[in-house]
Amino acid sequence: MTEPYIPLAERLFEQLRAQSHDGVGITRDTYGAGEQAAHATLAECARLLGLEVTRDAALNLYMTLPGQRRDLPAVVTGSHLDSVPRGGNYDGAAGVVAGMAVLAGWVRAGLTPQRDVVVMGIRAEESAWFPVSYVGSKAAFGLLKAQDLQALRPDTQRSLAEHIRECGGQPEQVAAGAARLQAKDLDCFVELHIEQGPVLIGAGVASGVVTGICGSHRYRAAQVLGRYAHSGATPRGHRADAVVALAALIDRLQDVWAELESAGHELTLTFGQVYTDPKQADFSKVPGQVSFTVDIRSRDTATLRLMDERLHETADTIAAAQGVSFEWGESSGSQPAIMDSALRQALHDAAAATGTSVRDMPSGAGHDSATFANQGVPSAMLFVRNANGSHNPDEAMDMADFTAATRTLARVLAARAGLPQAG
Amino acid sequence: MTEPYIPLAERLFEQLRAQSHDGVGITRDTYGAGEQAAHATLAECARLLGLEVTRDAALNLYMTLPGQRRDLPAVVTGSHLDSVPRGGNYDGAAGVVAGMAVLAGWVRAGLTPQRDVVVMGIRAEESAWFPVSYVGSKAAFGLLKAQDLQALRPDTQRSLAEHIRECGGQPEQVAAGAARLQAKDLDCFVELHIEQGPVLIGAGVASGVVTGICGSHRYRAAQVLGRYAHSGATPRGHRADAVVALAALIDRLQDVWAELESAGHELTLTFGQVYTDPKQADFSKVPGQVSFTVDIRSRDTATLRLMDERLHETADTIAAAQGVSFEWGESSGSQPAIMDSALRQALHDAAAATGTSVRDMPSGAGHDSATFANQGVPSAMLFVRNANGSHNPDEAMDMADFTAATRTLARVLAARAGLPQAG
Repeated sequence: MTEPYIPLAERLFEQLRAQSHDGVGITRDTYGAGEQAAHATLAECARLLGLEVTRDAALNLYMTLPGQRRDLPAVVTGSHLDSVPRGGNYDGAAGVVAGMAVLAGWVRAGLTPQRDVVVMGIRAEESAWFPVSYVGSKAAFGLLKAQDLQALRPDTQRSLAEHIRECGGQPEQVAAGAARLQAKDLDCFVELHIEQGPVLIGAGVASGVVTGICGSHRYRAAQVLGRYAHSGATPRGHRADAVVALAALIDRLQDVWAELESAGHELTLTFGQVYTDPKQADFSKVPGQVSFTVDIRSRDTATLRLMDERLHETADTIAAAQGVSFEWGESSGSQPAIMDSALRQALHDAAAATGTSVRDMPSGAGHDSATFANQGVPSAMLFVRNANGSHNPDEAMDMADFTAATRTLARVLAARAGLPQAG
Repeated sequence: MTEPYIPLAERLFEQLRAQSHDGVGITRDTYGAGEQAAHATLAECARLLGLEVTRDAALNLYMTLPGQRRDLPAVVTGSHLDSVPRGGNYDGAAGVVAGMAVLAGWVRAGLTPQRDVVVMGIRAEESAWFPVSYVGSKAAFGLLKAQDLQALRPDTQRSLAEHIRECGGQPEQVAAGAARLQAKDLDCFVELHIEQGPVLIGAGVASGVVTGICGSHRYRAAQVLGRYAHSGATPRGHRADAVVALAALIDRLQDVWAELESAGHELTLTFGQVYTDPKQADFSKVPGQVSFTVDIRSRDTATLRLMDERLHETADTIAAAQGVSFEWGESSGSQPAIMDSALRQALHDAAAATGTSVRDMPSGAGHDSATFANQGVPSAMLFVRNANGSHNPDEAMDMADFTAATRTLARVLAARAGLPQAG
């Protein structure tokens, strides 16, 4: 097969790192200077390769190697180009750079695929900047809600609509639901991404084929209400201690989580924030209130529902026993997405053909691939082994692992696009 | 016996309430306008009764009915006159007002005790204003440390020394350890105080004879250190979750507390504040850190030590199992104080003689009586039944319960001071 052109990938990673290093880590802010620079760098590279370069109303970037039959559904790869503040260089960008390396290999070999092959630079995937998930991929399908465009970026206090306009986009069209992509025009979407957890490192495996992308069920403003009282003057049996009740809930649910896993469910359960009231709580008072968050994730909607039921059952039992009450506030969440089985098999076969170790694994984190899959586009993801997690400056992907994964990606894209795979 | 003059108590409570109501509750701020006004009100009342009125360097108020033999150790009663912000009218003041009602009864009957009887208006008992316990009673015995006088009142950002000087006191003398009181000059100290918990209300008993005043062992800045990680991408076995570890600690220690109580220990255990880092914690991150406070109280130093040992043992087990670490920061605390058994018996006998229901109980809250007891002064406390706890505007003491307790107090003071108790 025609090898991806890895030296281009190395140059792109260097250029991205140099232009978005903030002194501590990498910052490519959504619809801000950081993301704009990354998009400009990739677009310039695409033009040098002779690719078609276009953008939609939300400024997603489409870098296309035209096929012999432009009416056929296109093969799409890519990922996002924004990062969290002080993040790493690879979360997102690796998937776009990999796609460019694949196309560069074909361009250098003078190959023309049967159908269009598109590398997308997707906008605004990191919800660190705007409290909206999958902004870019949703906008590409015309799915972003008008109200989402009014969301504020906390550091600038300007809306998503204002940011899009400042960068040169058309927020009115986005709000009106203008769709650049439709499922019928897409053959598939395959996204390469670094793994954001420790699974591949722990297993000693270079690549992961994602089986499904977790959906979530969340309470971002839950609380326990008890009764403030003097810590020394209030005996054990007379207390309604909000912190003790929450501790019981968190502790019991660790057992429930283990039990559900033993029964074959895959999920995560996280109480990421807990805090007593800074104005009312005191070291010498029984705490009468505590706030907390819950984040349940699973690839399986039934598992999300089951864990949510167990959460409420357990809380109800504790509330009755301890004389406190739980208030849950609004819940939010996202739908799980199932990855396409034919694409998954193709990724396994391609990895085997290139001698790369690979295993199936779910994605606990959300990705734009979920938007594509839930729109009915056959979708798949390939994870690259990465140390130290993501969303921090210590991300550590080996270029050898990236190269292996990009070769796997190239094989699958070539097969879908109708290019010879002799290798 | 000569009855206490309750109409005076009613007038004093009214006057105190009127002058210190803040719109929501009662505020008599330590070495501020509120406490000053209360001291002025009590001193004026004492002068009208013909009592001797003096103050020490820290402005504790001494209102004395001179005895026939002024060289004999004096009988002392009283309590503090400050309150927490938005507190109630009785926490502290009830003990001073009760003493005044007793002396007023004797003055009206023309009685002169064998020895001096002193009602103290003690300063600065509520640690809500300055982070120092027992300021007034410690200063009276010359026990306040020079560094304590540099403590700042958070709302004024002025030091305890500055506040004492502004009110007319001599902070240099206080810092130098000038003692107005010495144990050898005191026959006893008996303090009447509202109960700050629900025990007497729950038991349907009007008065409580305090068996001992709890000491404390505290960690005001403890934390659990784990590892921040992506909530969706980090499986159960790969986490070092600070909140889960703290929940386990709090939950296990509820069982330890119950077990120690079953074995005959009396104590309280409170985790009054817990909070993840507002800058780093997120609903979608495994929490890598959580701060918390611990307040252990007991009348028994051995029990304090035992619970502290169990706290550390349990934390060590959890740390080893979950891959987190506990950091405890500085500990602080106070010594328990044992109440005098002869005075306790005298309070029981006096309650029985006046037909008042009474029971023994520990004081979980700290009181100035602890300072007197630990200086070797025979000391006792009489609690008055009170609904809704203390340190809030909803304190609800019945005047009938106050009257019954004041009659009990009067009998004990009369016996110690050598007055006839026929009645």
